[in-house]
Amino acid sequence: MTPSHMAREVAEIPEAAARFLDAARAPLARAGAALRDRDPHLIATVARGSSDHAATYLKYAAELVAGVPVASVGPSVASIYGRPLRLAGAAAVGISQSGQSPDIVEAMRAARDGGALTFAVTNHADSPMAAATDHCLPLSAGEERSVAATKTFVNSVLAGLALIAEWRDDAALRRAAAGLPDAFGRAVALDWSPLSDRLARASQAFVLGRGPGFAIACEASLKMKETCGIHAEAYSAAEVLHGPAAIVQAQFPVLALGVGDAALPQLLATAERMAAQGADVFVTGGAAQGATRLPVVEGLHPLVAPLVLIATYYGFVEALARRRGFDPDTPPHLRKVTETV
Amino acid sequence: MTPSHMAREVAEIPEAAARFLDAARAPLARAGAALRDRDPHLIATVARGSSDHAATYLKYAAELVAGVPVASVGPSVASIYGRPLRLAGAAAVGISQSGQSPDIVEAMRAARDGGALTFAVTNHADSPMAAATDHCLPLSAGEERSVAATKTFVNSVLAGLALIAEWRDDAALRRAAAGLPDAFGRAVALDWSPLSDRLARASQAFVLGRGPGFAIACEASLKMKETCGIHAEAYSAAEVLHGPAAIVQAQFPVLALGVGDAALPQLLATAERMAAQGADVFVTGGAAQGATRLPVVEGLHPLVAPLVLIATYYGFVEALARRRGFDPDTPPHLRKVTETV
Repeated sequence: MTPSHMAREVAEIPEAAARFLDAARAPLARAGAALRDRDPHLIATVARGSSDHAATYLKYAAELVAGVPVASVGPSVASIYGRPLRLAGAAAVGISQSGQSPDIVEAMRAARDGGALTFAVTNHADSPMAAATDHCLPLSAGEERSVAATKTFVNSVLAGLALIAEWRDDAALRRAAAGLPDAFGRAVALDWSPLSDRLARASQAFVLGRGPGFAIACEASLKMKETCGIHAEAYSAAEVLHGPAAIVQAQFPVLALGVGDAALPQLLATAERMAAQGADVFVTGGAAQGATRLPVVEGLHPLVAPLVLIATYYGFVEALARRRGFDPDTPPHLRKVTETV
Repeated sequence: MTPSHMAREVAEIPEAAARFLDAARAPLARAGAALRDRDPHLIATVARGSSDHAATYLKYAAELVAGVPVASVGPSVASIYGRPLRLAGAAAVGISQSGQSPDIVEAMRAARDGGALTFAVTNHADSPMAAATDHCLPLSAGEERSVAATKTFVNSVLAGLALIAEWRDDAALRRAAAGLPDAFGRAVALDWSPLSDRLARASQAFVLGRGPGFAIACEASLKMKETCGIHAEAYSAAEVLHGPAAIVQAQFPVLALGVGDAALPQLLATAERMAAQGADVFVTGGAAQGATRLPVVEGLHPLVAPLVLIATYYGFVEALARRRGFDPDTPPHLRKVTETV
């Protein structure tokens, strides 16, 4: 059987990451210097879909590394409501694989008009979004043919982490980013088949994370919807206790994506509580009573560890999609480039 | 049969709103003057659960009225990761019915330490969160006994809108806020039984909105989970097209919450697209081919219209919960005050 585009693109993640790190040296150095020069009091992000999950990841990374608050700007504020935001002294980062969606392009134009120093993170350096911004970080991921983004999501987060490392001259984060191609190579080889067995006939699930791991939970949930038809929803491991836990009954599938960071104890405690409610809980990063532990790449910097998890997850979910009778490359009702206003 | 606490508290929404508007004149005037004095370049919000949906509503309102960007700060950045954000020149608003959750209190302390002018929006003026902030806007909602927040959510949004009106001296928004008790009185009398008939045996749903209406969609989804056991998920009417639409198959229930604002045409177009995919679509605010239109209070200011919708929705969802055999006052696995770290 011919492998799906998605399977091939997941397998390409290690080399796509290496290609970005090699190709982006000069634009990263320029963008990092521009950020040091601006010393922004705020970073605004503009994105949708998987790219917005990359933005969420970078929100935590920028807040934790630099202490600079990050605001996600709804593209509609500019595109629908026509309201320019006051962004003098701020930076704005637009993330879009295609760089084409009219609402994203319009919001980045409005950010620049509002005074922000603007950055485009895109796989298409010749796109309208790139043209509308001061700096472009091309993802160099190669063509992505599967509707479900994989290697472009990974390189979007990598681009942001590498930019933060440049901006703050953070040697540990720079080393961690440089080690990602190797870590991805190990991650795509891991086996999550116990989770696949459980989800082969599931219709719903929760995916939990915290901090940057919450962004990965969002991305994992979206992929489960797109490629497997499972109504998966992401929550922070704290937020889920403020209401959503009400629907977690016996055999409800829960995937708790933990890594070795300060949030792990709280995440594991939530996983144990869900297991005690009767849920079928799967967990990474540590042990939780009543939960099945899945393997991960160990010993990573806490700000790259959640990103490495998604490489394992993508391979798992592609196989799960086929097992459930879906073609992972062509989700129902979707096209590769979604243009919204 | 004795009505549930939730039913009684929904019926109290008009008088609770009137009580807030009467009692909060002086604190609103002081808080508004303090905001004019600070002229913040950024507003940070800190909240969880329903209160975080109120924060999302106020994000759109502040961005659309004042053009000031609003960032939702994950409480974990302070409480788990111990990273203070740089918030000099900013304002920070904490929203919590109880004012007690340790992560919220810690995040507001960190915001004040980081240089922000801080505001507490809470039903408990003697709470730790109120003590940790510069200004308190007491909700005056009266005791709320149902685990599912209703009148305190409404008054949280009202408090924020009234504060924005004071801050910007926006006469139209002030008049709209003053008219809310009357509008809520009309809203709670409306009948959404066609939606109730469809959801009596549903297990999943999407709730769509855009702009401040997206915040109401988030709140509506959470209530459907908490009180009815339905896995409802909220999306912006644009975001849902970037992937989640893949799971919208025949008979999938979709509630599209529109109001008469600039986003309505895009929301109605998304509703029509979902109906064309075979979904069972219900819509407010306008007509969409293939969708069932639900009644709303007409002729409202676009920044209060979504809030008025939720008063109708709360009455609908309380009745739906009982129809599905749930006690709306005591959702499974939840308590009134959720304390997370």
